[in-house]
Amino acid sequence: MTAEIQRLAAGPYAARSHEVWRHRHVLDVDDFTVAEIELVMATTTEMKEILARPIKKVPTLRGTSVTIIFWEASTRTRVSFEVAAKNLSADVVNIAAQASSVTKGESLVDTIRTIEALGADMIVMRHDASGAPYLAAEHFSGHVLNGGDGWHAHPTQALLDLYTMREHLPGGSVAGRKVVILGDVLHSRVARSNIWTLTKSGADLWLCGPATLLRGFERWAGATIPGGTSFTVTSDVSRALSDAHVVMALRIQKERQEGGLLPPLREYTARFGLTRERLQRAHPDALVMHPGPMNEGLEIMPDVATGTQSVITDQVTNGVAVRMALLFLVSGARDVE
Amino acid sequence: MTAEIQRLAAGPYAARSHEVWRHRHVLDVDDFTVAEIELVMATTTEMKEILARPIKKVPTLRGTSVTIIFWEASTRTRVSFEVAAKNLSADVVNIAAQASSVTKGESLVDTIRTIEALGADMIVMRHDASGAPYLAAEHFSGHVLNGGDGWHAHPTQALLDLYTMREHLPGGSVAGRKVVILGDVLHSRVARSNIWTLTKSGADLWLCGPATLLRGFERWAGATIPGGTSFTVTSDVSRALSDAHVVMALRIQKERQEGGLLPPLREYTARFGLTRERLQRAHPDALVMHPGPMNEGLEIMPDVATGTQSVITDQVTNGVAVRMALLFLVSGARDVE
Amino acid sequence: MTAEIQRLAAGPYAARSHEVWRHRHVLDVDDFTVAEIELVMATTTEMKEILARPIKKVPTLRGTSVTIIFWEASTRTRVSFEVAAKNLSADVVNIAAQASSVTKGESLVDTIRTIEALGADMIVMRHDASGAPYLAAEHFSGHVLNGGDGWHAHPTQALLDLYTMREHLPGGSVAGRKVVILGDVLHSRVARSNIWTLTKSGADLWLCGPATLLRGFERWAGATIPGGTSFTVTSDVSRALSDAHVVMALRIQKERQEGGLLPPLREYTARFGLTRERLQRAHPDALVMHPGPMNEGLEIMPDVATGTQSVITDQVTNGVAVRMALLFLVSGARDVE
Repeated sequence: MTAEIQRLAAGPYAARSHEVWRHRHVLDVDDFTVAEIELVMATTTEMKEILARPIKKVPTLRGTSVTIIFWEASTRTRVSFEVAAKNLSADVVNIAAQASSVTKGESLVDTIRTIEALGADMIVMRHDASGAPYLAAEHFSGHVLNGGDGWHAHPTQALLDLYTMREHLPGGSVAGRKVVILGDVLHSRVARSNIWTLTKSGADLWLCGPATLLRGFERWAGATIPGGTSFTVTSDVSRALSDAHVVMALRIQKERQEGGLLPPLREYTARFGLTRERLQRAHPDALVMHPGPMNEGLEIMPDVATGTQSVITDQVTNGVAVRMALLFLVSGARDVE
Repeated sequence: MTAEIQRLAAGPYAARSHEVWRHRHVLDVDDFTVAEIELVMATTTEMKEILARPIKKVPTLRGTSVTIIFWEASTRTRVSFEVAAKNLSADVVNIAAQASSVTKGESLVDTIRTIEALGADMIVMRHDASGAPYLAAEHFSGHVLNGGDGWHAHPTQALLDLYTMREHLPGGSVAGRKVVILGDVLHSRVARSNIWTLTKSGADLWLCGPATLLRGFERWAGATIPGGTSFTVTSDVSRALSDAHVVMALRIQKERQEGGLLPPLREYTARFGLTRERLQRAHPDALVMHPGPMNEGLEIMPDVATGTQSVITDQVTNGVAVRMALLFLVSGARDVE
Repeated sequence: MTAEIQRLAAGPYAARSHEVWRHRHVLDVDDFTVAEIELVMATTTEMKEILARPIKKVPTLRGTSVTIIFWEASTRTRVSFEVAAKNLSADVVNIAAQASSVTKGESLVDTIRTIEALGADMIVMRHDASGAPYLAAEHFSGHVLNGGDGWHAHPTQALLDLYTMREHLPGGSVAGRKVVILGDVLHSRVARSNIWTLTKSGADLWLCGPATLLRGFERWAGATIPGGTSFTVTSDVSRALSDAHVVMALRIQKERQEGGLLPPLREYTARFGLTRERLQRAHPDALVMHPGPMNEGLEIMPDVATGTQSVITDQVTNGVAVRMALLFLVSGARDVE
């Protein structure tokens, strides 16, 4: 056991985590308390210290078996979880479900039972059906981490987004800051999970895009989230961006569009694309974010994506640290539940 | 070297294995002696003890390079071998042959020669051509383990099936027990390998399914297997299940059916599907087994698959331990051959 | 730190490497000095000593994260790099770009930036666009190793080819030896990279194939490579093979042929296929080589490919050692640049 691990196991940090953390799984952020969000943020900072070392590896999860199974193609989220798990010395098994026998009529529940019987302690999964990780969690005695389910939730993305904002915003907090999520909100699990973390953290959240891609969110905006702020929904991009502190452009997921919801792409770019001109309406130090992969020239212009205000690659780097933190926290949760 | 390994290397167990074990490869179980089968069973029990520890890893195969190459899609068998090899600290390389340049006109022999030249000590392979692992073994100086070849053999499956039966049957033996393999026997490498281990172990084996899916087995049933029992072939499901101690339903491999061999699926389920009602003809404690992946509602009903008599997930768990045992035994075979 | 590593770090060998080695990346061999080529050869020999041990693993790159991303299917090159990196104790992440979200409109540069943000220290890449690794190297702060780009370059293949020739030729040198590259030179990155290493090493190089598959090389043959020999281009296979010391047959890449460039395959085999009869024109001890995967019976006959003069599997084995050497050399390059 390294000094790092002894400190994590013995110090006030671990004590704090035992008091606060109550999750066996990470399925969404909608049931995270403010204290739990703070714990994830603090643990992520510890993990970033590990990532800054010459050898980025600690033995924390040695002997733990993590199965990563993705029913949708992905590069960054899958690799991010794989790197995070390996940095903690876990054993990782990758299953590309879309290329495996899993597709041949085997039910999700049977697959999860099989993965458990094969010895997995944790499952990281992405599925095109909203709610699939909840079903998996009901049948798995270990820990399920949701790497994205349908249009529903992408909790690790929302937590890395929050961490990145706090890292760069003056004062280290999103409270009272104007945060704009711009684009195809309707089909975005990233947006849905961000709504929970950002309103709970006191942000002044704005959702902006074509009216067809905001359907259903106006009603939600009016609802009260206990202890949280409400949010604003608008198709007026000038009003949304005005004095914003954070602008997060969403990927236009062409393959997910139903007929008629999306304006022609050229028109979308003209009206909602994140250009240098449009960004000038925001605060001069406004952060530019994107969950990736980007369609540069469509929802975001290349000079904005790589400009001085962009923190997009920081999001990717923080993603590894956030996932290390969550793998660590759920594994420790065995003791307190 | 850990105490575990010292014990394996020095104790009566290892002495026993040096006397008994004579296989450089695991291609099928048809040439396994009863003593070898017993050795695999005993070694599997040792491996299950390792799997019961908090850290399921021993250094036994440290520095051994295992290449897993599958020409057919698979989840459970591939992952089971991967986990088994990693539990023994081997280095694992995965090759999905159906997605690689292997498919572009390169011969099997050239592929095997290449894998050897790349440094592999062991090859685990699945191939759609019956006999392919034998050809591979002729050209590979290390060890070949057959993960399934065409309709021919699936030796590790038969051994894990046997282990699971012995683990659950009173007295720990299949001798004299009525074991029924139910379904598409014709296209099943699982059935073919099970015939060898079960008749050698003295089971009262019954094969049951539509007559078209039992073709050729009646003649085999009459042949004498040296030292083994004969088996019964029938399409009479009531007679087959009557007082059975084990019922193993086979997967209906829709993609493998030639035209006309299989009755319509609804009719198959009506006549041969393993339902709760049908199972009541068997012994009250009869074990329910399936090699997976299951078509629940087709060859087996969901309530039977997950019922109290089902040992299907035990099969998966034991599969990891059996494969650990076989990887260990073939590696040690270097000393005795 | 093992004695091996201490020796590498402290001995005259390392001193030599610090004087000689100037590459942060391995993109092609066209800018390798003769001294650098010699260093790669000497380091490869050290790595072969490691490969001859019972446990083929050294901790040299422990904590180094290597991402292998291939936009084209491959078995031997990808696995060779993976095994090489693991032998040096690096952490390896595989990305099959053709099967991932990378294909969905994300730019190469964005992908490279993402891989860096995920924590990679080295990228091994194959891409169907010539020059792609150069673009990657401009945007990556770590080390890029080219595993093949379009028709342009395959530097690690050329170095393993050179090593294999030197290992088998009397005197351990290609200087003054007649080396024939036979086949589809036009579409071959293997041929292009071999031209650089072989002419710099003083070989008497001959390129031979149908005139349509030699287009553009006659002009190059006349150009002076500083410090190197020129080479000969011909469609006269008898003249090319006459008294040759090395004959390297190239893969006929059917999928890359533009209409009309290639003669019908049967005619190609009749005129240029490497048969036993044709090989008899060469020196009696001439080496037979092929970069693989082979179309046996098309560009090379099976009896030649596996005959006593063939060093084709040695090429594969040396490939692992050469890649270990290059991973080691670029990693140490951090100190000297």
